[in-house]
Amino acid sequence: MITSVSKKLIKSLQEKIDNKTKPVGSLGVLEDIAKQIGAIQNTLTPIIAKPTIIVFAGDHGIVNSKPISSYPQVVTQQMVLNFLSGSAAINVFCDQHNINLKVVDAGVNGELPDNSKLLKHKINLGTQDYSATKAMSSDEYQLALTAGKKIIRKIYSSGTNIVGLGEMGIGNTSSASLLMSYFTKTSIEECVGKGTGLDNSGVSNKIRILNDVYNLHHNTIETAKDALISYGGFEIVMMCGAMLEAATLQMTILIDGFIVTAALLAAHALDNKIIEYCIFSHTSGEQGHEKMLSFLGVKPILNLGMRLGEGSGVAVAFPIIVSAIEFLNKMATFKSANVSESE
Amino acid sequence: MITSVSKKLIKSLQEKIDNKTKPVGSLGVLEDIAKQIGAIQNTLTPIIAKPTIIVFAGDHGIVNSKPISSYPQVVTQQMVLNFLSGSAAINVFCDQHNINLKVVDAGVNGELPDNSKLLKHKINLGTQDYSATKAMSSDEYQLALTAGKKIIRKIYSSGTNIVGLGEMGIGNTSSASLLMSYFTKTSIEECVGKGTGLDNSGVSNKIRILNDVYNLHHNTIETAKDALISYGGFEIVMMCGAMLEAATLQMTILIDGFIVTAALLAAHALDNKIIEYCIFSHTSGEQGHEKMLSFLGVKPILNLGMRLGEGSGVAVAFPIIVSAIEFLNKMATFKSANVSESE
Repeated sequence: MITSVSKKLIKSLQEKIDNKTKPVGSLGVLEDIAKQIGAIQNTLTPIIAKPTIIVFAGDHGIVNSKPISSYPQVVTQQMVLNFLSGSAAINVFCDQHNINLKVVDAGVNGELPDNSKLLKHKINLGTQDYSATKAMSSDEYQLALTAGKKIIRKIYSSGTNIVGLGEMGIGNTSSASLLMSYFTKTSIEECVGKGTGLDNSGVSNKIRILNDVYNLHHNTIETAKDALISYGGFEIVMMCGAMLEAATLQMTILIDGFIVTAALLAAHALDNKIIEYCIFSHTSGEQGHEKMLSFLGVKPILNLGMRLGEGSGVAVAFPIIVSAIEFLNKMATFKSANVSESE
Repeated sequence: MITSVSKKLIKSLQEKIDNKTKPVGSLGVLEDIAKQIGAIQNTLTPIIAKPTIIVFAGDHGIVNSKPISSYPQVVTQQMVLNFLSGSAAINVFCDQHNINLKVVDAGVNGELPDNSKLLKHKINLGTQDYSATKAMSSDEYQLALTAGKKIIRKIYSSGTNIVGLGEMGIGNTSSASLLMSYFTKTSIEECVGKGTGLDNSGVSNKIRILNDVYNLHHNTIETAKDALISYGGFEIVMMCGAMLEAATLQMTILIDGFIVTAALLAAHALDNKIIEYCIFSHTSGEQGHEKMLSFLGVKPILNLGMRLGEGSGVAVAFPIIVSAIEFLNKMATFKSANVSESE
């Protein structure tokens, strides 16, 4: 059960902010972030404790039957190994900001070594090919959702109160596009983009293939659960479970790009109060993302044309969230600094 | 003399970036920043050394004769004291990111105590009232320009290779609007905004007053120097000198909001190669800023509706510039991480 954040506090937070030595409203979005996190934590002095980014990785059966990605499936496993060895983009940015990094094997098609960063929750060796059948069984869906919740409870109990979600999975922009089409009632054409770097004819192919997938499944989809079972992937369902649990535990949730937002569309369909706990880190260069964001009525912090995934948008935006908390807690007031107020 | 940055290196920097374990182009603006700083430093492995923000403070004679600001002039001095005591927004953000902070008395109307953060270069106790006469003499202009250059040489010789500029000065959005009008050939109406928080009738008054100022001076203005002498302020002229010297020394220059960009318009009129050394930190909420930026043909990193000055936009955007350098220097390549490339 997600409870709404404390609206009572918003006014007191605004008063606290307006007493700082600055023109009213002059810190813009930083003020909104400070108020939101204050309301989530139900305090005038919120803190950021043990920030953690969790990258959920999973493979997609479709990749081996249809040309929907410019990278082979093995890259999912290779990139997870890259995360574990500490040299991917997300490692660099997490190191820069002292963010804990955890990588979840939600369903990578290959074995992975033991590693302190790796959480093993493999549901299967990739999803089924949804151009032929449903991506997963109802049991697998439930296992993935539950695993996501369990991961969050463990991280929460270690003292984390802010969690960022990222993903890795060759082919997962296709699942995200299909989910976007279902949840936002938008044509497949408008939901499909270049992913990791298809050219124009690659995008046309992807649209044709995903339209066929849509035609195969859409008559049997009546709920968010049906959509997730049909289109996958395991990493997306697990993120959906993670988000729902994080909001239930009143943690601040940092949303990355296109695929993470697709998982949020599902979580939002299950409980729309989740949005009160979400901070949107960036607008992805993947073309459907802006439409997802306007469907949710939100505006992210950054718009840098990034489209890498891995939670990289969350990590790059993170210091701005810290800035919001820092000014709220540390700036002087007009009174304490003996500064005259506006006339 | 400003020399153009090394264009030869751009191709090699792009190749280095494209070998990183990520889809080509997927770090968006971070890639542009990495290339620009690499080119400025003429190396494939740029570094950020002793980052410093300099806040130039000065007063404006007009404030005491005409209602162009919602704060009294004494706030300039009070806020400088706030910077020196360490509790203003810019202190909080500089502390967060380990940025050195220096505050320059370019012409504050009041005495200031000795302080390790304060650089004393007071040209006068505020400018003259430009609704009656020129804001400064030709000698004062030259002194301010030279002081700006001297400040940069000192900071450069201490090992800083990246410098952010900020400002404090009650009334200085008015000087910035007048300068913008001159350099971008735009009507006063389009250059004037709320500043620190005027209401609509305050803005109308400000437009009327600044139109009168424009009519008083514009026939005698033929050069950038004439414009700066007519409209001031000391902090703007000093920033102009600082920028010119920083580019001459091949430092990376971080530009803040409306007033700092007005100083850059003047520096740009004196030597347009300066733009190659500038990174634009944010789009200010002050309405004229976007037009200044499009006149220069640039797009800042952030757009958070901030309009505080003090270099706060630079400080908040700074970690993103660090991220650009970090990924360039630290991320694995496809080869080193054994990741398959795009097919």
